[in-house]
Amino acid sequence: MKHWRVGILGATGTVGQRFVQLLEQHPWFTITAVAASDRSEGKRYGDAVAWKLPTPLPARIAELTLAPCRPPLDCDLVFSSLPGDMAAETEVAFAAAGYPVISNSSAHRMAPDVPLLVPEINPEHVRLIPLQQQRRDWTRGFLVTNPNCTTLALVLPLAALERAFGVEMVVVSTMQAISGAGYPGVASLDIVDNVIPYIAGEEDKVESEPRKILGQLVGDRIEPAVLRLSAHCHRVAVTDGHLCAASIKLRQPATVDEVGAALEAFRGPAEVAALPSAPARPIVLRREPDRPQPRLDRDLERGMASIVGRVRPDPLLDIKLTILGHNTVRGAAGAAVLNAEFLAATGCFT
Amino acid sequence: MKHWRVGILGATGTVGQRFVQLLEQHPWFTITAVAASDRSEGKRYGDAVAWKLPTPLPARIAELTLAPCRPPLDCDLVFSSLPGDMAAETEVAFAAAGYPVISNSSAHRMAPDVPLLVPEINPEHVRLIPLQQQRRDWTRGFLVTNPNCTTLALVLPLAALERAFGVEMVVVSTMQAISGAGYPGVASLDIVDNVIPYIAGEEDKVESEPRKILGQLVGDRIEPAVLRLSAHCHRVAVTDGHLCAASIKLRQPATVDEVGAALEAFRGPAEVAALPSAPARPIVLRREPDRPQPRLDRDLERGMASIVGRVRPDPLLDIKLTILGHNTVRGAAGAAVLNAEFLAATGCFT
Amino acid sequence: MKHWRVGILGATGTVGQRFVQLLEQHPWFTITAVAASDRSEGKRYGDAVAWKLPTPLPARIAELTLAPCRPPLDCDLVFSSLPGDMAAETEVAFAAAGYPVISNSSAHRMAPDVPLLVPEINPEHVRLIPLQQQRRDWTRGFLVTNPNCTTLALVLPLAALERAFGVEMVVVSTMQAISGAGYPGVASLDIVDNVIPYIAGEEDKVESEPRKILGQLVGDRIEPAVLRLSAHCHRVAVTDGHLCAASIKLRQPATVDEVGAALEAFRGPAEVAALPSAPARPIVLRREPDRPQPRLDRDLERGMASIVGRVRPDPLLDIKLTILGHNTVRGAAGAAVLNAEFLAATGCFT
Amino acid sequence: MKHWRVGILGATGTVGQRFVQLLEQHPWFTITAVAASDRSEGKRYGDAVAWKLPTPLPARIAELTLAPCRPPLDCDLVFSSLPGDMAAETEVAFAAAGYPVISNSSAHRMAPDVPLLVPEINPEHVRLIPLQQQRRDWTRGFLVTNPNCTTLALVLPLAALERAFGVEMVVVSTMQAISGAGYPGVASLDIVDNVIPYIAGEEDKVESEPRKILGQLVGDRIEPAVLRLSAHCHRVAVTDGHLCAASIKLRQPATVDEVGAALEAFRGPAEVAALPSAPARPIVLRREPDRPQPRLDRDLERGMASIVGRVRPDPLLDIKLTILGHNTVRGAAGAAVLNAEFLAATGCFT
Repeated sequence: MKHWRVGILGATGTVGQRFVQLLEQHPWFTITAVAASDRSEGKRYGDAVAWKLPTPLPARIAELTLAPCRPPLDCDLVFSSLPGDMAAETEVAFAAAGYPVISNSSAHRMAPDVPLLVPEINPEHVRLIPLQQQRRDWTRGFLVTNPNCTTLALVLPLAALERAFGVEMVVVSTMQAISGAGYPGVASLDIVDNVIPYIAGEEDKVESEPRKILGQLVGDRIEPAVLRLSAHCHRVAVTDGHLCAASIKLRQPATVDEVGAALEAFRGPAEVAALPSAPARPIVLRREPDRPQPRLDRDLERGMASIVGRVRPDPLLDIKLTILGHNTVRGAAGAAVLNAEFLAATGCFT
Repeated sequence: MKHWRVGILGATGTVGQRFVQLLEQHPWFTITAVAASDRSEGKRYGDAVAWKLPTPLPARIAELTLAPCRPPLDCDLVFSSLPGDMAAETEVAFAAAGYPVISNSSAHRMAPDVPLLVPEINPEHVRLIPLQQQRRDWTRGFLVTNPNCTTLALVLPLAALERAFGVEMVVVSTMQAISGAGYPGVASLDIVDNVIPYIAGEEDKVESEPRKILGQLVGDRIEPAVLRLSAHCHRVAVTDGHLCAASIKLRQPATVDEVGAALEAFRGPAEVAALPSAPARPIVLRREPDRPQPRLDRDLERGMASIVGRVRPDPLLDIKLTILGHNTVRGAAGAAVLNAEFLAATGCFT
Repeated sequence: MKHWRVGILGATGTVGQRFVQLLEQHPWFTITAVAASDRSEGKRYGDAVAWKLPTPLPARIAELTLAPCRPPLDCDLVFSSLPGDMAAETEVAFAAAGYPVISNSSAHRMAPDVPLLVPEINPEHVRLIPLQQQRRDWTRGFLVTNPNCTTLALVLPLAALERAFGVEMVVVSTMQAISGAGYPGVASLDIVDNVIPYIAGEEDKVESEPRKILGQLVGDRIEPAVLRLSAHCHRVAVTDGHLCAASIKLRQPATVDEVGAALEAFRGPAEVAALPSAPARPIVLRREPDRPQPRLDRDLERGMASIVGRVRPDPLLDIKLTILGHNTVRGAAGAAVLNAEFLAATGCFT
Repeated sequence: MKHWRVGILGATGTVGQRFVQLLEQHPWFTITAVAASDRSEGKRYGDAVAWKLPTPLPARIAELTLAPCRPPLDCDLVFSSLPGDMAAETEVAFAAAGYPVISNSSAHRMAPDVPLLVPEINPEHVRLIPLQQQRRDWTRGFLVTNPNCTTLALVLPLAALERAFGVEMVVVSTMQAISGAGYPGVASLDIVDNVIPYIAGEEDKVESEPRKILGQLVGDRIEPAVLRLSAHCHRVAVTDGHLCAASIKLRQPATVDEVGAALEAFRGPAEVAALPSAPARPIVLRREPDRPQPRLDRDLERGMASIVGRVRPDPLLDIKLTILGHNTVRGAAGAAVLNAEFLAATGCFT
């Protein structure tokens, strides 16, 4: 397999640190550049970062010098975890300069010519890439995004149910980890002995992104899936792991056992399952009455799966279940790394 | 106003302690008896109780001697916060022995001849009491219950919406405080950096109790309301205050402003509003984008109101909102005290 | 009693909010002015503040307009909870302009002519005020400070022991609440499932301030007490209430009972005990093996006392004990209010 | 290397689960027997255990059937994590029946003929084993213990300082994780928004065990080290990792740099360093101002090291520092596994 030299935009943030951690021993990608806000430019990464992960900061990365978030950057492709406002222009600049941009930012997720890629679900959406390049007059560069952290956890089981039975309606309430707000992020006075029933912009993303992800590529555009969603988003005193309680109306009736079987049987295409960061099981089904739980289950499948439990009948819709996803692994950096692996393996960049 | 001498069954538990706290300076009720499990019998209350409230244990109560949970008890009526299994027989024994039993336990809540009383909502349900006494051949004694802690928080705004627009369907997800499980209750290893997506029996209660509370007394029985509910219940690392995220389908369309107005306008009958423990506003409406929050709002109206916020349109049903209730005050001991006040004021016991 | 019109410098911060709360119904002081950073100038207080206390923001204060932190201000004296760097110049400017400045800031605490006042301990230190005014050529204005939040909790029992037995040496380890860092203050990712073993500048303050507080006024200066301290300061996931574990070497031997008796007997002068905010007992002694605890004991004596427990022999020094103080009440705003009451009652301003 | 078949006494508890986790892929030891209280006898381990670790319960162990805690047990040696009261007799019964007993329990730690073994510190204490066997008339069986979780974290740096400079006096205050109390252990109502300043029996252990560990084997007995300790023990809302703040008086003066160098240079004998579970560095020195922190540092060296930071002068004694140890790994099961490895490697059992 070929190797690629990768850069990380927003390398000092919470998700940037996960990129560094996940790529430390990656078989295909080697970090050769780290970039952050202008005020960090020229600093040693190890000096500029407030490293908050329980595994040590890799010594080689600590020695890299932070570049500004402008092309050129000494790498073959870039991962981006820039905040939305900064991502909009910066990512376009990199793509225009010939860099594949694998982004975790929200800025371009809903753009009609940008794949919102979950390779187990919509690998064919990468066919937007040549259209995007043509339309924007880019040659080697392009933009590919992954979903919001909550969307990702939710959309894997929704895809399984959509394939098996069709999904008509989803009411979902989330209990989201503080790491999802970055660092310093949520003030401790707001979360100790408390729940915050509001996360700016989150409910919109959870209600709209799944429709694009589950949509069909028709000609040169994505036809959104017809399911409808209602989301209630909350922040809770959990370090990592977003928990979601969902009531789901299916298009065809299904028993609890059939739903469980559909969830457990769900797999992406074989070429996705073979990727280095792909989970053996994209969905892990727990059958205990009180699982999944963030602290106990977030690291299953190295944080790359949706953990589903408490599948039971819903008195109003059809089915109730509980979903857990690791918000900074599969919900952010891990999703982008898997996307990059898929793009590399399928020749979307060279 | 007359005074009554009251006993507390289950006086050493989490809810029992709230009874002691709330009744310490009550204008009508004076604690004259405390009862607990047989192994505490004969102990000084102050020695037997693991007092966990931030206000001091009242010195007079500390000196009381714990009686067993059997009649006779030196009092005019009893409050019960016994665990469900123990409550079933014990409460009947006290009622049969002539004691009005004002219970927070779940044992008799759904019995057809027992009021599940929320005086702002269904004061007329007390008319079941003479029927109950007649059927069971009791004279002065009877059973009156208050709802589950989560149900109470939820049913006040549901009642307001039911009156104004009719309620057809409710999907609710809860984030419940650890005090709701009593003491020692939830193990700390289960809740620090975690959420538990399961509370035994809770979803059933939340799905069934509101239908009885909002039901109509027709002849000698309660005709349940026709609304339907689906509940997802979770335990979170909050000391006091249950938070609920609800999506609601109304029978008549209503705007966000109309819903807010209906919630704020909600009042019980004048004789309820005049009771010592009644909140000035049974529903407090918050208009900030990120409220209610348990730590900041649970003590509004001395913990006796439902705090509602984030009223907004629901893309699937009609309206979304967030509800907070103090689970051991209005959700437990405070509800029972208010019920007793209502029963006293309306001459249900003498 | 006369009334005074008071201003609050730093009114939107965590301690500023406590000032607003504590002064809402104060018998002598009425808030007539609130001041904050320049960028808030001209805003309605209720719009500018992120109110984080569980009691509601008083409606009258919410309507006040924020002034800049410069004299003149429409009031007779000012309370200051400005951050240290900003306090240095601003407080001097107000004092020079004729305002008594009752400050919770650290800027002037150790200045030789500024009382570091704890009225139960060192009321005679107010005699520095005329010296201060003379030296600085001020007329009506002056500066009086209260100690750091941890120092205050610690120094009340130290004063009791100093009086009774003499104190030679103190090794103290603290577990401090997040509210002590203001808002947003401590990042939630740093404190959930964690302890931070460092608070900038805190150990120095705890090691030096008690020596001044317990010092003797000799001529025109304070002779520091000779006790020596060593402090270890930590931040823990507690909302309010600093807990301190202290090993203490006394000058004269004393038994556990004698120490307990000395702590319980400790009182300030009668004119201090009569002040509106003074605790009935400046030190509350708990005899249970596992108290004090922040959540259960911080509000004793309305947060104005040091709660001491676990008095026991120390195998190395003489005595070990555990101390709890409410860091934003007696440890901050409450200390300043009590100081102002004392200064008013003793005619230090008119 | 030879292989051994091992049994675990107390296999369902918090420490028992760590044994299962740590031994899952051990190169020398294979779990062949699990034992627990009589009421679990005959149950499948996977059914009886409330598995609370974030790594999955190994499938092979889940299928084992729980035996009672009585010999014979199908294994060559036993690890014990029984509670103290049950351990006293049971461990003796196993040793008498010919099983080497490698115990984490407190029951026999201070017995004069039982090694309290930390192989980097006192490997020569194993010479008590033949004396123990002779005195008790045992043949193959014997008892070896490891220290209390807090003692272990503390005693590694104390040993380093004792060797380099001599240690005269230690005042230590601990902030201990909830996993140290087992499951269900600490009630969540006692720890959310709180600190508990008391752990039964803990201060005695911390004050006495280091003296035995650092003692000299003189003839057939351990001469305790002369250092003296004073401990304050607290429980905080941390899942894993005990933090200790220590003030230390040395016998010979040493600078902060010399202390840091002595800590970093500390190593056990070469044969200990070569053991499978031995940390590369028994002491990891952090030089950041705010480390170690439980969440970030507890898993360094796979949880088998003491992490030390904040080395600084102490105004009263000589040196202050902060220590972190993983309480259920090196502080419990990991210590026992390392002890067993050392005993195996040095031929103490065959």
